[in-house]
Amino acid sequence: MNSPNPSHVPSPFGAVPRLAGITAPGAPTVPLAVLGLGMMGTALASALLQAGHQVTVWNRTAAKTGPLVAQGALPADSPAAAVSASKLIIACLLTNDHVQEVLDGVGDQLAGRTIVNLTNGTPARARELAAWAAEHGASYLDGGIMAVPQMIAGPHAYVFYSGDERAFRTHQPTLAAFGDTKFVGADPGLAALYDIALLTGMYGMTVGVMQAFALARTENIPARELSELLVPWIGAMLAGVPADAEAIDSDQHLTDVSSLAVNHAAIPNFLAAFRDQGVDPLFFGPLQEVLDRAVKEGYGGDGLSRLATLFAR
Amino acid sequence: MNSPNPSHVPSPFGAVPRLAGITAPGAPTVPLAVLGLGMMGTALASALLQAGHQVTVWNRTAAKTGPLVAQGALPADSPAAAVSASKLIIACLLTNDHVQEVLDGVGDQLAGRTIVNLTNGTPARARELAAWAAEHGASYLDGGIMAVPQMIAGPHAYVFYSGDERAFRTHQPTLAAFGDTKFVGADPGLAALYDIALLTGMYGMTVGVMQAFALARTENIPARELSELLVPWIGAMLAGVPADAEAIDSDQHLTDVSSLAVNHAAIPNFLAAFRDQGVDPLFFGPLQEVLDRAVKEGYGGDGLSRLATLFAR
Ligand SMILES: NC(=O)c1ccc[n+]([C@@H]2O[C@H](COP(=O)([O-])OP(=O)(O)OC[C@H]3O[C@@H](n4cnc5c(N)ncnc54)[C@H](OP(=O)(O)O)[C@@H]3O)[C@@H](O)[C@H]2O)c1
Ligand SMILES: NC(=O)c1ccc[n+]([C@@H]2O[C@H](COP(=O)([O-])OP(=O)(O)OC[C@H]3O[C@@H](n4cnc5c(N)ncnc54)[C@H](OP(=O)(O)O)[C@@H]3O)[C@@H](O)[C@H]2O)c1
Repeated sequence: MNSPNPSHVPSPFGAVPRLAGITAPGAPTVPLAVLGLGMMGTALASALLQAGHQVTVWNRTAAKTGPLVAQGALPADSPAAAVSASKLIIACLLTNDHVQEVLDGVGDQLAGRTIVNLTNGTPARARELAAWAAEHGASYLDGGIMAVPQMIAGPHAYVFYSGDERAFRTHQPTLAAFGDTKFVGADPGLAALYDIALLTGMYGMTVGVMQAFALARTENIPARELSELLVPWIGAMLAGVPADAEAIDSDQHLTDVSSLAVNHAAIPNFLAAFRDQGVDPLFFGPLQEVLDRAVKEGYGGDGLSRLATLFAR
Repeated sequence: MNSPNPSHVPSPFGAVPRLAGITAPGAPTVPLAVLGLGMMGTALASALLQAGHQVTVWNRTAAKTGPLVAQGALPADSPAAAVSASKLIIACLLTNDHVQEVLDGVGDQLAGRTIVNLTNGTPARARELAAWAAEHGASYLDGGIMAVPQMIAGPHAYVFYSGDERAFRTHQPTLAAFGDTKFVGADPGLAALYDIALLTGMYGMTVGVMQAFALARTENIPARELSELLVPWIGAMLAGVPADAEAIDSDQHLTDVSSLAVNHAAIPNFLAAFRDQGVDPLFFGPLQEVLDRAVKEGYGGDGLSRLATLFAR
C-alpha cells in the first residue's frame, strides 16, 4: 500500500475539499475495480473514469459494462479478473449478502488490497466484513453514500467512511471523486450507523410526504398543488431541528411551542382521517402508543424532542 | 353580518397578502372572542390585539387571561359571557370534543354569529360541527393553522379555511392578523384535510429525525453533530419532492434514481440496526410490508413516488 502524501492527509473527522475531475497532484493513482454496476455503481465508476483513473468494471449482468467501456473502463468477465487487476476494490451491490458472496469467491486474492464497500448495510455486518477482510490480509473501509446516483461527483454528495484509517488516508484523494469524504472512526460500523441515521430521517420524511399525497388523492387534490405547500412547510419545520438537538443534548425538553400532550390529543384525528379516507396510517399507530406511555409517565409538558429518548427503549 | 368590502375580496383559492399589525382600511371591525388560551390560543388573541381589535378572552383556567388583559383584552368568566359580547368567535381548544362541549353550553346564543374553529380535527368532525352550527343559525368556518405559536403573525404563518365562503370573505381582513389566509373550499372538511396532509409530512419528518437522534445517542454521537448533517441532507431530499409529485400526477413511476427493489432490499438493514441498538423502528415494519407487496406485484422498478398509490389501499 502506498503511504499517504502528507499534503493530502485529511483531518480524521470531517469533510475534505473535493477534487473535481482531476487526480490530486502527487496523489497515488492505483488501478481500481468497481464491482456492481447498478444505478449507483455505474455512477461511481463513471466518476472515477472522469477523474482520470484506470477502472476495471464487473457486473453480474455483463451488458451493463457497455456504457462504461465506452468511457474508457476495462470490462472484467469475473470478480476474480477484476480483483487481480486492481489494488483498490470498490463494491456497490444490492446487499451485503451479495458482497460476501462475491468476495468469498476471490478470498485468496485479496491480500494486500483494499476493499471499500459502499453497499447499504448494518453496523454489525460492516464489523463482520472488516474482520473477514483482515483474515484475508485485506484492508477494509465501509462507506455510506449520502447522495442519489445523479448527485455523485456533484457539489452536495458525500460519503461516510469508517474502518482502516490508514487505508482511508491513502485512498482519500481517489475517493474524493465521488464527493466529500467524511471519515467517522476506526470502528468499521460507524459509517453504516451515520448512514442509517440520516437515511432514517429521509425515510420518515418520505413516508410522511407519500401518506400526504395519498390523502390528497382521495379528494382529487393534485400532488403538484400539495407539493407546493408541503415543501416550504416541511422546510420551515426542518429549521426547528437544531433547537430539538439542543434540547436533546441538554436533556431540557419542556416546551412553549407544542407539547406532547397536545400532540397526543391530536393523533386520534390522524388515525380517524386515515381510516375515513382509506389510507395506510403507517407510523401513527406506533406513535400513538409511545405518546400514550409518555403522557402517563408525566412527559406531557415536554416538546417533541423528548421522542428521541422515548424511542430508545 | 357585514358584507365584504369588494377591495378586500380574496381569490377564493390561495393566499391573500397579510395585513401586518393593522386593520385593513375600510375592513369591518367586529367585537371578537377567543375561546381557549393555550399556547396557540394565546398567540392568536395576542395577534388580534396587536391588530387593534376588541378581543374578549375566555379560558377554562382563568389565570391564563392575565397576560392578554395586560395587552388590552377583556376577560370573560364564562363562554356565554364571551359569546354574548362578540360577533366573531374563534375557538382553539385541545380537541373538538372540548369545542363541542363549550359550544353546547351556548347554543341558544349563536344565531347570527360566526364561529371560526382553529382546533385540530378531522374532515368528518368539521362537517358535523358545521351542520350543528347551521342548526343554531351560526356561520361556521373550520381552520387548520400552519404555524407554531411563535410563528403567528410572522411572515411564514398561514391558515387553511373551509366552510362558509361568505363568512370567510367578511372576516378575512380580521383573520389576516394570524398570517396568510388560504380558503380551500366550501366543504367544511377541506381545511382539516389539508392540515392533516401537511402535518403528516411534518410528523413523518419529525419521527424519522427523532429515531435518528435516538440511534446516534446509542453510540454517544451528540444530537447537535447529527443535526448539522441531518438538516442539509433532509433539505436535499426535500428538493426531490416536486419531481415525486410530477410522477404521481402523471402516474409515471419508473425511476433511474432509487428503485423500490433497492429500498426493499435495504429495509431489513434498518430493522436489524434498530433492533441491535435498541431503538423503536416505528414505520419500518409497516413500510417493509408495503414494499414486500409492491415488489411481488411487479413495482420493483418504480421509484418511491409509487408509495403514494400503494398507501391508498
Ligand atoms: N440508488 C441510490 O439512490 C442509492 C443511494 C445510496 C446508496 N445506495 C446503495 O447502493 C447499493 C446499490 O444500489 P443501486 O441503486 O445501484 O441498486 P441497483 O440499481 O438495483 O443495482 C444492484 C446491483 O447489485 C447487483 N446484484 C443484485 N443481485 C446480485 C447477485 N445475486 N449477485 C451479484 N450481483 C447482484 C446488480 O447486478 P445486476 O445488474 O446483474 O442485477 C446490480 O449491480 C445498494 O446497497 C443501495 O442501498 C443506493
Ligand atoms: N401548539 C402548536 O404548535 C399548534 C399548531 C397548530 C395547531 N394547534 C392546535 O391548536 C389547539 C390548541 O393547541 P395548544 O398548543 O394551544 O394546546 P395547549 O397549550 O395544551 O392548550 C389547550 C387549550 O385547551 C383547553 N382545554 C383543555 N381541556 C379542556 C376542557 N376539558 N375544557 C375546556 N378547555 C379545555 C386548555 O385550557 P386550560 O388552560 O384550562 O388547560 C387550553 O386553553 C390544538 O387543537 C392543537 O392541535 C397547535
